[in-house]
Amino acid sequence: MKTQAKAILEAVSAGTLSVDEALLRLKTDPFEDIGFAKVDLHRKIRQGLPEVIYGAGKTPGQICGILETMVKNGQGRVLVTRLSPEAAETVAERHPIVYDAPSRTAILGGKPAPDGIGRIVVATGGTSAIPVAEEAAVTAEVFGNEVVRLFDVGVAGLHRLLAHKEEIMSASVIIAIAGMEGALASVIGGLADCPVIAVPTSVGYGASFGGISALLSMLNSCASGVSVVNIDNGFGAGYLAGLINHMEAKR
Amino acid sequence: MKTQAKAILEAVSAGTLSVDEALLRLKTDPFEDIGFAKVDLHRKIRQGLPEVIYGAGKTPGQICGILETMVKNGQGRVLVTRLSPEAAETVAERHPIVYDAPSRTAILGGKPAPDGIGRIVVATGGTSAIPVAEEAAVTAEVFGNEVVRLFDVGVAGLHRLLAHKEEIMSASVIIAIAGMEGALASVIGGLADCPVIAVPTSVGYGASFGGISALLSMLNSCASGVSVVNIDNGFGAGYLAGLINHMEAKR
Amino acid sequence: MKTQAKAILEAVSAGTLSVDEALLRLKTDPFEDIGFAKVDLHRKIRQGLPEVIYGAGKTPGQICGILETMVKNGQGRVLVTRLSPEAAETVAERHPIVYDAPSRTAILGGKPAPDGIGRIVVATGGTSAIPVAEEAAVTAEVFGNEVVRLFDVGVAGLHRLLAHKEEIMSASVIIAIAGMEGALASVIGGLADCPVIAVPTSVGYGASFGGISALLSMLNSCASGVSVVNIDNGFGAGYLAGLINHMEAKR
Amino acid sequence: MKTQAKAILEAVSAGTLSVDEALLRLKTDPFEDIGFAKVDLHRKIRQGLPEVIYGAGKTPGQICGILETMVKNGQGRVLVTRLSPEAAETVAERHPIVYDAPSRTAILGGKPAPDGIGRIVVATGGTSAIPVAEEAAVTAEVFGNEVVRLFDVGVAGLHRLLAHKEEIMSASVIIAIAGMEGALASVIGGLADCPVIAVPTSVGYGASFGGISALLSMLNSCASGVSVVNIDNGFGAGYLAGLINHMEAKR
Amino acid sequence: MKTQAKAILEAVSAGTLSVDEALLRLKTDPFEDIGFAKVDLHRKIRQGLPEVIYGAGKTPGQICGILETMVKNGQGRVLVTRLSPEAAETVAERHPIVYDAPSRTAILGGKPAPDGIGRIVVATGGTSAIPVAEEAAVTAEVFGNEVVRLFDVGVAGLHRLLAHKEEIMSASVIIAIAGMEGALASVIGGLADCPVIAVPTSVGYGASFGGISALLSMLNSCASGVSVVNIDNGFGAGYLAGLINHMEAKR
Amino acid sequence: MKTQAKAILEAVSAGTLSVDEALLRLKTDPFEDIGFAKVDLHRKIRQGLPEVIYGAGKTPGQICGILETMVKNGQGRVLVTRLSPEAAETVAERHPIVYDAPSRTAILGGKPAPDGIGRIVVATGGTSAIPVAEEAAVTAEVFGNEVVRLFDVGVAGLHRLLAHKEEIMSASVIIAIAGMEGALASVIGGLADCPVIAVPTSVGYGASFGGISALLSMLNSCASGVSVVNIDNGFGAGYLAGLINHMEAKR
Amino acid sequence: MKTQAKAILEAVSAGTLSVDEALLRLKTDPFEDIGFAKVDLHRKIRQGLPEVIYGAGKTPGQICGILETMVKNGQGRVLVTRLSPEAAETVAERHPIVYDAPSRTAILGGKPAPDGIGRIVVATGGTSAIPVAEEAAVTAEVFGNEVVRLFDVGVAGLHRLLAHKEEIMSASVIIAIAGMEGALASVIGGLADCPVIAVPTSVGYGASFGGISALLSMLNSCASGVSVVNIDNGFGAGYLAGLINHMEAKR
Amino acid sequence: MKTQAKAILEAVSAGTLSVDEALLRLKTDPFEDIGFAKVDLHRKIRQGLPEVIYGAGKTPGQICGILETMVKNGQGRVLVTRLSPEAAETVAERHPIVYDAPSRTAILGGKPAPDGIGRIVVATGGTSAIPVAEEAAVTAEVFGNEVVRLFDVGVAGLHRLLAHKEEIMSASVIIAIAGMEGALASVIGGLADCPVIAVPTSVGYGASFGGISALLSMLNSCASGVSVVNIDNGFGAGYLAGLINHMEAKR
Repeated sequence: MKTQAKAILEAVSAGTLSVDEALLRLKTDPFEDIGFAKVDLHRKIRQGLPEVIYGAGKTPGQICGILETMVKNGQGRVLVTRLSPEAAETVAERHPIVYDAPSRTAILGGKPAPDGIGRIVVATGGTSAIPVAEEAAVTAEVFGNEVVRLFDVGVAGLHRLLAHKEEIMSASVIIAIAGMEGALASVIGGLADCPVIAVPTSVGYGASFGGISALLSMLNSCASGVSVVNIDNGFGAGYLAGLINHMEAKR
Repeated sequence: MKTQAKAILEAVSAGTLSVDEALLRLKTDPFEDIGFAKVDLHRKIRQGLPEVIYGAGKTPGQICGILETMVKNGQGRVLVTRLSPEAAETVAERHPIVYDAPSRTAILGGKPAPDGIGRIVVATGGTSAIPVAEEAAVTAEVFGNEVVRLFDVGVAGLHRLLAHKEEIMSASVIIAIAGMEGALASVIGGLADCPVIAVPTSVGYGASFGGISALLSMLNSCASGVSVVNIDNGFGAGYLAGLINHMEAKR
Repeated sequence: MKTQAKAILEAVSAGTLSVDEALLRLKTDPFEDIGFAKVDLHRKIRQGLPEVIYGAGKTPGQICGILETMVKNGQGRVLVTRLSPEAAETVAERHPIVYDAPSRTAILGGKPAPDGIGRIVVATGGTSAIPVAEEAAVTAEVFGNEVVRLFDVGVAGLHRLLAHKEEIMSASVIIAIAGMEGALASVIGGLADCPVIAVPTSVGYGASFGGISALLSMLNSCASGVSVVNIDNGFGAGYLAGLINHMEAKR
Repeated sequence: MKTQAKAILEAVSAGTLSVDEALLRLKTDPFEDIGFAKVDLHRKIRQGLPEVIYGAGKTPGQICGILETMVKNGQGRVLVTRLSPEAAETVAERHPIVYDAPSRTAILGGKPAPDGIGRIVVATGGTSAIPVAEEAAVTAEVFGNEVVRLFDVGVAGLHRLLAHKEEIMSASVIIAIAGMEGALASVIGGLADCPVIAVPTSVGYGASFGGISALLSMLNSCASGVSVVNIDNGFGAGYLAGLINHMEAKR
Repeated sequence: MKTQAKAILEAVSAGTLSVDEALLRLKTDPFEDIGFAKVDLHRKIRQGLPEVIYGAGKTPGQICGILETMVKNGQGRVLVTRLSPEAAETVAERHPIVYDAPSRTAILGGKPAPDGIGRIVVATGGTSAIPVAEEAAVTAEVFGNEVVRLFDVGVAGLHRLLAHKEEIMSASVIIAIAGMEGALASVIGGLADCPVIAVPTSVGYGASFGGISALLSMLNSCASGVSVVNIDNGFGAGYLAGLINHMEAKR
Repeated sequence: MKTQAKAILEAVSAGTLSVDEALLRLKTDPFEDIGFAKVDLHRKIRQGLPEVIYGAGKTPGQICGILETMVKNGQGRVLVTRLSPEAAETVAERHPIVYDAPSRTAILGGKPAPDGIGRIVVATGGTSAIPVAEEAAVTAEVFGNEVVRLFDVGVAGLHRLLAHKEEIMSASVIIAIAGMEGALASVIGGLADCPVIAVPTSVGYGASFGGISALLSMLNSCASGVSVVNIDNGFGAGYLAGLINHMEAKR
Repeated sequence: MKTQAKAILEAVSAGTLSVDEALLRLKTDPFEDIGFAKVDLHRKIRQGLPEVIYGAGKTPGQICGILETMVKNGQGRVLVTRLSPEAAETVAERHPIVYDAPSRTAILGGKPAPDGIGRIVVATGGTSAIPVAEEAAVTAEVFGNEVVRLFDVGVAGLHRLLAHKEEIMSASVIIAIAGMEGALASVIGGLADCPVIAVPTSVGYGASFGGISALLSMLNSCASGVSVVNIDNGFGAGYLAGLINHMEAKR
Repeated sequence: MKTQAKAILEAVSAGTLSVDEALLRLKTDPFEDIGFAKVDLHRKIRQGLPEVIYGAGKTPGQICGILETMVKNGQGRVLVTRLSPEAAETVAERHPIVYDAPSRTAILGGKPAPDGIGRIVVATGGTSAIPVAEEAAVTAEVFGNEVVRLFDVGVAGLHRLLAHKEEIMSASVIIAIAGMEGALASVIGGLADCPVIAVPTSVGYGASFGGISALLSMLNSCASGVSVVNIDNGFGAGYLAGLINHMEAKR
């Protein structure tokens, strides 16, 4: 953006752009051209970071259209989340995506080689949370992270979790996913010394209230280093974990 | 009660009681005289089981009055719960109670020797749950149970809990008390093979919502053998644990 | 477990196992091998106690797989809960299970002869709670308990309940199941002198809010000896009742 | 009202009132002059029915002012509810009210002789609901009803309630007041064949949530003939019970 | 009941019944035989009052079975509520019921001539509340009440309601049914001087939360004489209104 | 109305209408005849303002019936909201409506030329809120307003919104529509100096709770000049915006 | 802002400002200097519109400091809201404010002459909502509006409201303030043809839940033209009403 | 731990430790001795990382005792949170703590020089959130982070936030703290490309519900990279931000 704004100013200075015209361009240019987000976007494209399409509520046609635009603009890697198998089939007819049924995601351009600080552990309390966990895991992988999956290590059978303490202790970031009572985040938070991202799931019945019980449990975690994302938000957790796993000095 | 109803019938049969008079007595006698609860009460008095006075919202004068009536009726052991230190002082001037500040309970007639099946473990997640835990523990003791206290063994520092697995594995009943995320009940429920009574506490801040978070967490526990009582209801947990710890054949 | 851990140590002591190999085995062995839960599991298998499969959200294929593994490992009796009739049909083609439609449970290996302390009463407020009640009853029976069913004895017609006071007074444990206002637990809790496990159900309409009304009502029960499990959790109540009905000295 | 509107019309017809003036009066007259509520008010004054002042949030001065106006307008009997002892003292200096501490009500002009269809039973589950019960009872009495008080007949000790089945069976209207689990309304509703007005109270702790638990329980009552008023609304229950107890043919 | 109990006592007195046998009969007789509810039931049958079957969750077969039993026991008039058209068709093949689609009720034995104190007004705020209103109206009619229907008189068009003030002022009991903001109950309560039964409905969208908004609004009504039943509980309102409309002296 | 009431009075004055007949007409005439709403209605018809039919829950037949009546009474322009495509098809067979699929509205008589004070901006946070936005926009247009649509300008990409600050700054009224966190209303409220009407939508998942999150966020907006309508209530927002955009002196 | 940005560009064009320096200034200048809000602020000062200080949670010293800064910058009229009498006293020692106890507001510089389109009616359901109403009324007056106060016109006594239909019909904007059931907004919305701003208040007890009941009721209003602000937010309503009452053409 | 467990095994192998003794030590050693947390603790002490005492609910005496123990064990730096000024005074008499009133924290041993990856920005929406923000900032500083404070940059005046986009764009981690509508987290999340930790505060009134509104808003943030901690949990946010700001390769 600086370039763009600077270019306008230089044109004014050089007399090749009138003040009024410059004023107009400064005002009407998409704000990202003189600001924040677009720089980021450019950096993303330059660095090969993937774009993301939230597939829920979009028709296969709309998804194809967005994909096309992205590809035209040089975007080589795209992640589509919350994509139904039916929609995936239609999209696959026109774009070489690879669909992953458990996570309901599709990837265009494959997963990159991991280049993060360490490994991201994705742990679930039970088997029913696996779809959310796979969404988190695939997201993290698409953003260049190595992922270790620890599924069905809920606290009601603590030994299952403790048998994997090595992975937990050596993780860079941990994503703890659980429905029902959501205690997994606290227990992992108490074991680990890295950031823990808790994801409540809507799995459960009765007083689990579609994930509220797990959500509250996770927000109230006594363990330090735990934060929470929205119910079933595997993508958000995977994305944030990837951000943290790619921390680098900014000074 | 059978005795009492039978006595009426026998008196009718013997002609010493008119039909109408018998009818009246069957109807106007306190229902416990021809029914359920009073038998239990009699058994209690006979067996030396304590009576309980819920002290909250009662004046010291009212508590003294109830105590007096109980003592007159041969009740040798009484537990008063939710008793403020001020009220306790006033009551102590007229009755030889022993007041226990941490649990806010008072006992008349002392604690009996334990005669239950095994030991009742009272565990808390943190130090702030101790008042509720002491109410549970003292209640259990007054009802003739041996109590093991495991305080501050919350899941955020799992090793503290695991260091006491011996006590947990050998318990007869466990009372798991926790505020905030209430994960203690699930973790203990996963370790133990005995009934676990979970008590959510109102301790906490923010999204703990006065105990709702812990309550929901405990209700959703994935561990089998866990049930829940009301928020802060230490007495209820102690009483129920005592019942279970005194199970005996009824056949 | 002690045996297993001891065996490792003895092998080290005897020089037949290297320190590093022993270290590895102590770490990689399922934690239950050096700990708590597995002992329990072994005891279960040795004593013929059933294993349980939570059928909801599992495919018939998955259930068959788990069943097969269990049978191979000598498990002669298995309870499957929340099993749809369709899934049951498929499973029945490969395993000699007996399906019980009202409770949506299947049993492999039949029910054992009851060997508990006494009888477990399963009471419901209305007919619509019967599926939950049957899940509780069958669970208790599979775990070796004699069960008395008292259905449709809700408090709105108190005489229906009082007509069964004999069963209530002589019960070892009572499971009180009700939707709507959930008053059954309090009334039974006031009549009985044994532990009462309250199960709120999601049956109802309007302000019953999927069981919240009954849940709150049961948590606030003024009767002593009452605890609560999750909404519709018949299995949990049956399992806990069985635990209590098999209490024995641990000293 | 008909009279008043008719009078206007007759004056127009007689030529003693211009059309425009009549139009203005029809529009600007207080609506009660051509309508509903005021007729009712007049009837009240004529029949000696009491007026009511809701004392909460009013200064003693304001209450005195309203009282004065009422007395000037010929109102001989006034009920003041939710009146603190301090405010009552001040008011009593200027008006011959009789203050009733348990119900926090004051009465000017005394209670009338009961003239209702039958007796109104006011029942409470515990002693802590008595202030609400007394507000209901005094309100009913001031409106000319005979009241029978059945306090502390909660369902956790069912015999206490059943011992009074005579009063319950012969009541004209029953007001059932309870906090905590609020089961009293259902049980009484199942016993009685008259209208039952349920009043949840804010008494309780933990999951009673300031009366929500009792409120939901009462709304979900399986017993027919039960309706509910606001939490702690003793006045509303007493007033409605009085209305019902004075039903008379309107044809 | 008195007769029955007295009969037992007289037989004992006469020596024709042993004490033990009498004891047994007093205990095992259905409680209604020595108590409250059954007397009421008998009275109902004797007086021709209808029995009610709550059809929701019952199969046509079950409903037929219950109907048959009732008819055999001399019950000439039966109301079935919450009956789907499909179920009604099946039932109609075996019993001469008359099905009413709008209210989803079926009647066996027809509606009796009204014999209440006055008229019951059933008012709704909109057209979508009509199914609940019809359930209330039909229930009231089956219990012998004359019903006036005032549909779609919501407060957002106040003139629609005020145009019917005559009916409102002369009603014996009013049932006010509304979803969304539920203000109808308050406005009617302010106009009328008779008992008002408010029925919140689940009709609405957004922040109506399935009837919670209307429910809270009605509970908080500033108008005296208003009480509330469960969301969508047209039957409960109609039954209670009928009770009130048949009040008679009990002294 | 004044005319109508005056006419009655004049007829009485002239002796052509008896007092009793006048009384009856004043009472039985629809209240709008002597009051408020109908004047408004008349003005509407006179001025060509549209009538509105809320289509949800009405059959095509009912809608046709209402339409017919309106047309007969000279209503030339009608808006039907919440109309399904299927119902629209049926209605279109009998009335020349134009159906708009995105907003699920139908218009009879076309949109008028805009005659408001300024432009109404309809902004959404994402694409999924567009149906609600279109309902708002079409409603505003049918009521004679020029509408500017700013879709998908959510705060998570602030530049998208800021790129349109010109439209925002020059708007007469702004309708801000958003689901999930609902921050759009606050950000727009901080930018604009005109009234902002916030519409929460039920779009979202997890802790969006069907629009509650957005609703609370909007109610708590720190920006002045923001008010809120019900979740998904596009019509309400469009109607209110139209009212404000047609403000004129009333003195 | 345009001026400011243009000035920078002209300086660049004239060669008196380097490109880099211009770039820096465009970026580091407070955004209001090149944007929206500050223009608005300038306009406010120029036009004599008041500034507002939210007094809650600020010390008298802080308020004095802010006042001083405002006065120095030429702000002649300031409104302070939520100001306690004690704080007002301290502030009054240093600034010539006029404190209004009922609304807890203070004004510096007096109220301007009204110059809006019409009159703003502020209506309350009861006397306890008057503090909120006065905050709204004073706010509106300080922003140059004529205010008509209609207090205690709740729907439970509909005639009180209808007696003021003239004021309601002729209002430019109406602010409807009510606690408890909040029906006032719907009824007024049904009577008036102008925008209605509904303000729920936290006044009430029991199931009013601190204003939630009134809030939901108002959000669900069936009347068109009604929108809602936060509970007790009198200022917000007064400010918005003032905005609407000063609408003018923007084209 | 590996060392410790290995040491035991080596001693067994060397014959200097019997199998039984080894078994006992493996079982009875505090789990932290053979596990996770304690290693972490040792590392902390070795590296000079601070310990933390949660001061709420602890007496000054208890805090002193804990401090003493820590100091004895070589802990040179301790942070005490939620410490009242009164308690701080007492503690300061015995320990050289420095108390910080705005954050209610005390530090023993001073703040270390920052050594993180970059800067942590702590931003608040208003001035009332500053206490929570200071708790977060001080916590981060005590854990060795450079903190930039951006207070009162709420979205209702977007320019205030945008004026600081430089700090936001260059931050390593951002803590976004806001009450009321909590939109700050979304707006910052949309601007920044680093992890954002959102902290809802309990500041607000009306429908802010003690922080629930802000909490839900933040959980539903559409911006990627945002996670949430408990209401008012400044410490948790500061600690987690510190963890992230000290990420380093673990491979």
